[in-house]
Amino acid sequence: MTISPDAHLAEERLHRMHQRLGGIAYGGDYNPEQWPRDVWLEDARLMQEAGVNLVTLAVFSWSRLETADGVYDFGWLDDVMDLMHEHGIGVDLATPDAVPPAWLIARHPDILPELADGSTFGFGSRQHFDVSHPVYREKALAMAEQMGDRYAKHRALMMWHVGNEYGPVSYGPWAAKAFRGWLRQKYSSLEELNQAWSADVWGQVYSDWNQVDVPAQPRTWSNPSRRLDFHRFTSHSMLEHFKAERDILRRHTPDLPIVTNFMRFYKTNDYWAWAAEEDAAALDIYPDPREADAHVAAALNFDLMRSLRKGQPWMVMEQATGAVSQWSVNVSKLPGKMRLGSYQAIAQGADSILFFQWRQAKGGTERYHSAMVGHAGPNSRIFREVVQLGNELKDLGGLAGTRATAKVAVVFDWECWWALELGNSPRSDLNYAQEVLRLYRPLFDANITVDFVSAQSDLSAYSLVLLPAAYLLNDESAQRFEDYVSDGGRLVVSYLSGIVDESNTIRLGGYPGALRKVLGAWSEEMHPLAGEGEEVKLTTSDGGTASASYWTEHLHTQEAEVLASYDSGRLAGSPAVTRNTFGKGSAMYLSARVDPTFLKLLLAAECEAAGVQPELQAPPGVQVRRRTGSGSSFLLVLNHNDAPARVDVGDGGTDRLTGRRIQGTVELPPNEVLVLAEPTR
Amino acid sequence: MTISPDAHLAEERLHRMHQRLGGIAYGGDYNPEQWPRDVWLEDARLMQEAGVNLVTLAVFSWSRLETADGVYDFGWLDDVMDLMHEHGIGVDLATPDAVPPAWLIARHPDILPELADGSTFGFGSRQHFDVSHPVYREKALAMAEQMGDRYAKHRALMMWHVGNEYGPVSYGPWAAKAFRGWLRQKYSSLEELNQAWSADVWGQVYSDWNQVDVPAQPRTWSNPSRRLDFHRFTSHSMLEHFKAERDILRRHTPDLPIVTNFMRFYKTNDYWAWAAEEDAAALDIYPDPREADAHVAAALNFDLMRSLRKGQPWMVMEQATGAVSQWSVNVSKLPGKMRLGSYQAIAQGADSILFFQWRQAKGGTERYHSAMVGHAGPNSRIFREVVQLGNELKDLGGLAGTRATAKVAVVFDWECWWALELGNSPRSDLNYAQEVLRLYRPLFDANITVDFVSAQSDLSAYSLVLLPAAYLLNDESAQRFEDYVSDGGRLVVSYLSGIVDESNTIRLGGYPGALRKVLGAWSEEMHPLAGEGEEVKLTTSDGGTASASYWTEHLHTQEAEVLASYDSGRLAGSPAVTRNTFGKGSAMYLSARVDPTFLKLLLAAECEAAGVQPELQAPPGVQVRRRTGSGSSFLLVLNHNDAPARVDVGDGGTDRLTGRRIQGTVELPPNEVLVLAEPTR
Amino acid sequence: MTISPDAHLAEERLHRMHQRLGGIAYGGDYNPEQWPRDVWLEDARLMQEAGVNLVTLAVFSWSRLETADGVYDFGWLDDVMDLMHEHGIGVDLATPDAVPPAWLIARHPDILPELADGSTFGFGSRQHFDVSHPVYREKALAMAEQMGDRYAKHRALMMWHVGNEYGPVSYGPWAAKAFRGWLRQKYSSLEELNQAWSADVWGQVYSDWNQVDVPAQPRTWSNPSRRLDFHRFTSHSMLEHFKAERDILRRHTPDLPIVTNFMRFYKTNDYWAWAAEEDAAALDIYPDPREADAHVAAALNFDLMRSLRKGQPWMVMEQATGAVSQWSVNVSKLPGKMRLGSYQAIAQGADSILFFQWRQAKGGTERYHSAMVGHAGPNSRIFREVVQLGNELKDLGGLAGTRATAKVAVVFDWECWWALELGNSPRSDLNYAQEVLRLYRPLFDANITVDFVSAQSDLSAYSLVLLPAAYLLNDESAQRFEDYVSDGGRLVVSYLSGIVDESNTIRLGGYPGALRKVLGAWSEEMHPLAGEGEEVKLTTSDGGTASASYWTEHLHTQEAEVLASYDSGRLAGSPAVTRNTFGKGSAMYLSARVDPTFLKLLLAAECEAAGVQPELQAPPGVQVRRRTGSGSSFLLVLNHNDAPARVDVGDGGTDRLTGRRIQGTVELPPNEVLVLAEPTR
Repeated sequence: MTISPDAHLAEERLHRMHQRLGGIAYGGDYNPEQWPRDVWLEDARLMQEAGVNLVTLAVFSWSRLETADGVYDFGWLDDVMDLMHEHGIGVDLATPDAVPPAWLIARHPDILPELADGSTFGFGSRQHFDVSHPVYREKALAMAEQMGDRYAKHRALMMWHVGNEYGPVSYGPWAAKAFRGWLRQKYSSLEELNQAWSADVWGQVYSDWNQVDVPAQPRTWSNPSRRLDFHRFTSHSMLEHFKAERDILRRHTPDLPIVTNFMRFYKTNDYWAWAAEEDAAALDIYPDPREADAHVAAALNFDLMRSLRKGQPWMVMEQATGAVSQWSVNVSKLPGKMRLGSYQAIAQGADSILFFQWRQAKGGTERYHSAMVGHAGPNSRIFREVVQLGNELKDLGGLAGTRATAKVAVVFDWECWWALELGNSPRSDLNYAQEVLRLYRPLFDANITVDFVSAQSDLSAYSLVLLPAAYLLNDESAQRFEDYVSDGGRLVVSYLSGIVDESNTIRLGGYPGALRKVLGAWSEEMHPLAGEGEEVKLTTSDGGTASASYWTEHLHTQEAEVLASYDSGRLAGSPAVTRNTFGKGSAMYLSARVDPTFLKLLLAAECEAAGVQPELQAPPGVQVRRRTGSGSSFLLVLNHNDAPARVDVGDGGTDRLTGRRIQGTVELPPNEVLVLAEPTR
Repeated sequence: MTISPDAHLAEERLHRMHQRLGGIAYGGDYNPEQWPRDVWLEDARLMQEAGVNLVTLAVFSWSRLETADGVYDFGWLDDVMDLMHEHGIGVDLATPDAVPPAWLIARHPDILPELADGSTFGFGSRQHFDVSHPVYREKALAMAEQMGDRYAKHRALMMWHVGNEYGPVSYGPWAAKAFRGWLRQKYSSLEELNQAWSADVWGQVYSDWNQVDVPAQPRTWSNPSRRLDFHRFTSHSMLEHFKAERDILRRHTPDLPIVTNFMRFYKTNDYWAWAAEEDAAALDIYPDPREADAHVAAALNFDLMRSLRKGQPWMVMEQATGAVSQWSVNVSKLPGKMRLGSYQAIAQGADSILFFQWRQAKGGTERYHSAMVGHAGPNSRIFREVVQLGNELKDLGGLAGTRATAKVAVVFDWECWWALELGNSPRSDLNYAQEVLRLYRPLFDANITVDFVSAQSDLSAYSLVLLPAAYLLNDESAQRFEDYVSDGGRLVVSYLSGIVDESNTIRLGGYPGALRKVLGAWSEEMHPLAGEGEEVKLTTSDGGTASASYWTEHLHTQEAEVLASYDSGRLAGSPAVTRNTFGKGSAMYLSARVDPTFLKLLLAAECEAAGVQPELQAPPGVQVRRRTGSGSSFLLVLNHNDAPARVDVGDGGTDRLTGRRIQGTVELPPNEVLVLAEPTR
Repeated sequence: MTISPDAHLAEERLHRMHQRLGGIAYGGDYNPEQWPRDVWLEDARLMQEAGVNLVTLAVFSWSRLETADGVYDFGWLDDVMDLMHEHGIGVDLATPDAVPPAWLIARHPDILPELADGSTFGFGSRQHFDVSHPVYREKALAMAEQMGDRYAKHRALMMWHVGNEYGPVSYGPWAAKAFRGWLRQKYSSLEELNQAWSADVWGQVYSDWNQVDVPAQPRTWSNPSRRLDFHRFTSHSMLEHFKAERDILRRHTPDLPIVTNFMRFYKTNDYWAWAAEEDAAALDIYPDPREADAHVAAALNFDLMRSLRKGQPWMVMEQATGAVSQWSVNVSKLPGKMRLGSYQAIAQGADSILFFQWRQAKGGTERYHSAMVGHAGPNSRIFREVVQLGNELKDLGGLAGTRATAKVAVVFDWECWWALELGNSPRSDLNYAQEVLRLYRPLFDANITVDFVSAQSDLSAYSLVLLPAAYLLNDESAQRFEDYVSDGGRLVVSYLSGIVDESNTIRLGGYPGALRKVLGAWSEEMHPLAGEGEEVKLTTSDGGTASASYWTEHLHTQEAEVLASYDSGRLAGSPAVTRNTFGKGSAMYLSARVDPTFLKLLLAAECEAAGVQPELQAPPGVQVRRRTGSGSSFLLVLNHNDAPARVDVGDGGTDRLTGRRIQGTVELPPNEVLVLAEPTR
């Protein structure tokens, strides 16, 4: 996956925006149409107090901007844009395509998406559209044209925000038509499709293109190759729509960044393909505060965002100050956690810290989603934290544009995700994100900075590559991993990698078909462990003990050496973990889910062998990241613990938050952070 | 909520009926069309043996009474009515609108309700109608006209029973049309609707009335104000239909009571509005025998029924002698429990004890629902208990028409219920009935008689008012509670009260917006406790300890004094329970779910301060209630325990069941009851 | 239930086929259309290596055999048939009616079944047809005609396999029409239907046949008599279709067996009715390897298959070598278990051991279903076990045609099953199969061979009959059981037997209405135990103790003696287990679910009294069965344990697997089996 040839243009646009904003962007979604005008003035004043320099407007404004077909009313938005500008606040202007108005739905009810169960997703939520509907697309593009034309020259305009959290998957007739069209593009003939879909299994051979339909409602037992193609199609068709809006806006404002917002662990859209079309990766991040280790999964998503556009600064487009209404119990973030999480994003490469939303709604579905100004008003802990952070960030402009460097890459790939979780699998509870997280976590804990790559990415920059549950690898990818090792790279592969080809068809002759050669080992049969907590014992090659759970397989080595073997269970005596020297490099195979302690040892040894160093040795729960630019280097140290932590920062540097010079061992309070400007080396 | 101006007429109708019946009504639903005629004769004989004086006929008889469109066959019903009369048994005659016949559905399939998921509720159950369908309404009214005309003068006719357990909510086109009509009545303009529904959130602004639809199927994420209005509409539209039938029957029989049957904790219909249109509240009560404390929830419902029409005697319209087929495991009541539950209803103001049903069906869905005569026939424990109770009640005619008096009121309000449980809330497991029960229970345990009131009720008769989870309060209600306290009343408010206005929109500026002033305290942020069994510690103002779970919030006092503060958790040091002196009265705020022991202490202190006394000091599990009339007073003492209980009844009185004079300490066997006629004071 | 008058013809057909095959059939489903032609040759070679003599072809081939309406292409199948014949492999040729092709569905979309919830089961799975659709039936019969015509004389053809796992239940318009037709055949008038369905309950009286619809979607609360008839109809309508195809094939090949494949514990189709129309019972058996006692439930199904056609040899039509993709965690069989399970089937009367499938698919839904040749190819443990077993079976031809003898019968009846599990029952978790298994298990453990019979079967051959949860008994059945006892038989009845008549209507006057007389006892009321693990104590007539859980009832004895009474709970003092001497026999009533130890004692005593002997006394987990023919007798001894077992085989015989003479005590390794040819007696 490569990003578009004008990548430097995107970077330049983003760079200029941060210059106009004076460094880091700070602010959030602002929905003034929900409030009377006197509140607007108070808002502008409070934004200034909070150091806000960027707000996102119009995400949900379609019905107020186009009040009837072709009848546009931009007057109120003009006023808000002007008001923002008067207060020195920039605008990230959204096209409101997430909310086609009631009048449009009334005229074209088939814009509403049809769900997989045949029911229609009614009006009254959001993203209530089938993106393949021609009238929907036409009207959304017309709106983009109107907005581009009207606001291209507005001095408040800093960037564009196309749509919102693209997502709804329609199984309706328009989607079906578009799916057939997409398939005809992909397959030169029906027989090729029949072949790719293994249509002879259960006699599903198609003899006319019109027989091909979306995979709605044939029990969960529908053809996994067909469903994989439908995943590809839905991501593709939404991206096409994004691109069409983007191109309109680009024409009006060639120099402004244009993005849409991504989501955390969001399976529907292949963000590698999407990011290539964006000027920046922009993330909506809502970790559940009830998860003790929410910051680790957040870290994964942050590194992923940074990696989607090859290290370019990214944006926190939405986060919550406190509660998030989507959780079953709407627990608020503890004091200090919002600020800590914001610095974590910055430490991992973000140059924008934005919230959903500025002012908490008093009605509607999300009225219990927290905001920068909550229901209680500005006299609140949350607003005070918002003000503190905003004013701190004003002084951190120097970080904007700096970057992280990694020598380790982890593969995160949507095709693998889709294929692994299609069901009809060796086990129904497979969770791709958790499999990636499992390999990511030991590196995070060790403060080793990693990049993410797709299965199509160039690997030459990395000394070590991890390949977790990379279920689907096409021939080129397989070859690329093989070449990477052959050329001296170190590869760590975990179970359920390389099982199927691009058609979601098993590679025969022993698992994992795509990687047998580089691993020097092959599996005869999969043996998932069914029991809750079921474990088998392992003996390691140095005489130690370990264990495995969840997944095992009947592995045979060819050239590979055995690092651990089963000591109990049906596979006793067989190898579980192997390493193969291949060309100038080596490939480790974790054919079982080994226990975290053993996994940590194995990965630490790989890192050492690959010459990979942590940013800093730090106690558990203390995250350390470095951002460097031309002539500057910042070491960010974050204490995620609920207790103080003692950290040896070595030479350290000047803490940009306190102005103090820090070196040697310091005690960091809970939720506290150091932003050390390091002496130039 | 006031009951209709002719409340005294309703009471008079009920009074006359009980006079005709000779006191307490006893009997049940009777469905002779399910049985051959020879069984009818045996039924009449057994009814006499059991002391039955009232049976409900024709609830499910539409298809036998109107065998084709406009073809009526009342002959068989004439015979049953005559047979009942010959045996001295009165008839509660039902309009059979719950079961539109197969021929009607075949001709108008769109009478069948459409469910929220878009599926159609098929023929073969009951309540299979969209009450907004014009043909359904026309045919139901025609049937009422026929029955009113034919039986107005029948000597067996004692009262009317309109429909059955009104309930089904349709999301079909007829409902949608009626909903739009109702909205146009309620809102003077679309812009007013858009405002009330916060339609700008997520861009849901309507520009034409025809765009407004029922809230079916937009995920669970649909607009909570829209859904609240739909709740109001469904209750209203069913009530309109009830009233139309009632008015027809009233014309034929101005002096007979007309009712429909209510259900236990039934959320769909606002029974305050309904009860105002009935001649008596009539309850179908099916506690699950597997719940150890089922009698407490039953007590709440009984007090609610008595309160719905301001203390007027109410009816147990349906209960089971044993098993109830709707439970997943159909456990039968233990011996003695049916009799005890019947006396409990009487103790709490019921003058009618009726069952569903007289004879257990041998087919159909409810064939495992117990009856007065079960599958095994009259030679059974259950029938013997039925006979015993029926014959006891014959001697208790003097209780009929007597009343209870309460100085404490608890608010139970359907608008609060609907709004609280619409979802998109701080937590998804909110349960209004359980919140009310939580405050009700300590008073029940202490044998303090309470009335229920709505949020619209006059409170002047009460020394103490409890306001549990009164999530929605309109401006007038909020003012009324404030005035009540100001004028000297004592108010106890629990969390999640006064949060939204009548449009289900948050009252801003600190929770609970509607009650901040009277409470002298405000909350900055809600902090529900997520963990199973998660608890925080409290310190009370007198140095004691307590705990809270499930719900906490970040409370600030203004004028209020602090009764308990958090001693652990994120809110350590903040107040949890406060009391504010306001005008001549005081208002306590339970901002957290405190533990039952502490709650009991707090409420006991409030009762004492308010001069509220128990009916009698009695050991746990012994319920005591008093009913008084002109010149008579009855003390009912019920032992809900499985073990004997020793109760000091003081002066006591003559037990109407045994004829014995009871005073001082007596031992009451398990499930036993005393009905003490107290000496006139 | 009797099997068709030409039962001997069926047996003769089967006998001849086994003669042609040289004894036991061995092989599996083969789907060559999924593979290129060069694989076909390797397949044929590997089949020979594995001792395969029978493969099932064309189950899913419709779309390749009829590529457009009326355009047939049999060329490729001709080649496969020839190839098989050339390699000495016979063919079980399937009609592919399970998979109507895409072109047929595109032309007649209403062939797709409509599910109970109103949704349509889409194309892309299998069994996607409403069997009542006239075009579907016409096209399926035309295909049968084509195949019969083309292959009748092919020398590879050994038998026919009609359709596949008949199952899908449609609630669509074609099914509704056919249902009405079926009802008009069954009921002479609508009034008779109204009576049978207790239509007066809830006013569901029908006045025109067109008002009668399939019981889709009226909540779960629909009429249980109506739903019972729908169960009967669906089994009947699918069987009619099977018969139509069979008759066509019979015309072409009067001498070949024609079967369809049955499933394990499959509720939809009444296999007593179906088996009567088959030439052999053929079972697809997929026990979940995660169930420790999967072999016991398998044993029940094996005995059932043998019994369906009165002891005639049956076929394992499908089993897995390892993993089965339908399980949530796809655990593979342990080494040795596939072979052991195959011998278990043989021990219980099977003469065919076939697998689904020969070669594991590389695509499609079932690609993780194991096969004789797996993804890894023939170099695998599984293929080696397949080869071993196939070559062993070659030497066991003498078993083919031998039979088992039983003196105990257990009633297994689909009408009972349907009626018991229709819901609206005393408890919602009733599980017929588990109730049968509960009584079956002690006999299995004791190595007592049992036959299964339906509630309509002749019982005269049996000394002891068990009647578990025989909820529905029509008058004739009830009389037959009574006569059986009266004539000297021993009957054991468990709770929830004889409750309803053939219309699913309660038999009044005390439970169990149909068996009160023969049991000499009656129940007044059912008392299911609701609590998880809730138990009551029993005292036995000999002074011992026992317990009961799940189910109790208030039982009264008339003539019966009491074997155990309640010692705790609400029924303390009442009888729980009784035995009644009636005529020359006796009838035991287990009115409660007694604990397994007590149940074992009770059944052992019954066996002893009935003169029933085990095949052999063997340690736990060792199964012993005997098959005898004219002049031959085989004792099969199977060790299901994970540890060796010592078994005293007495005189023993010659082990046909090793050729060794075995007698006295031998040690049998885990998963091992003896096939002892016993000395002729």
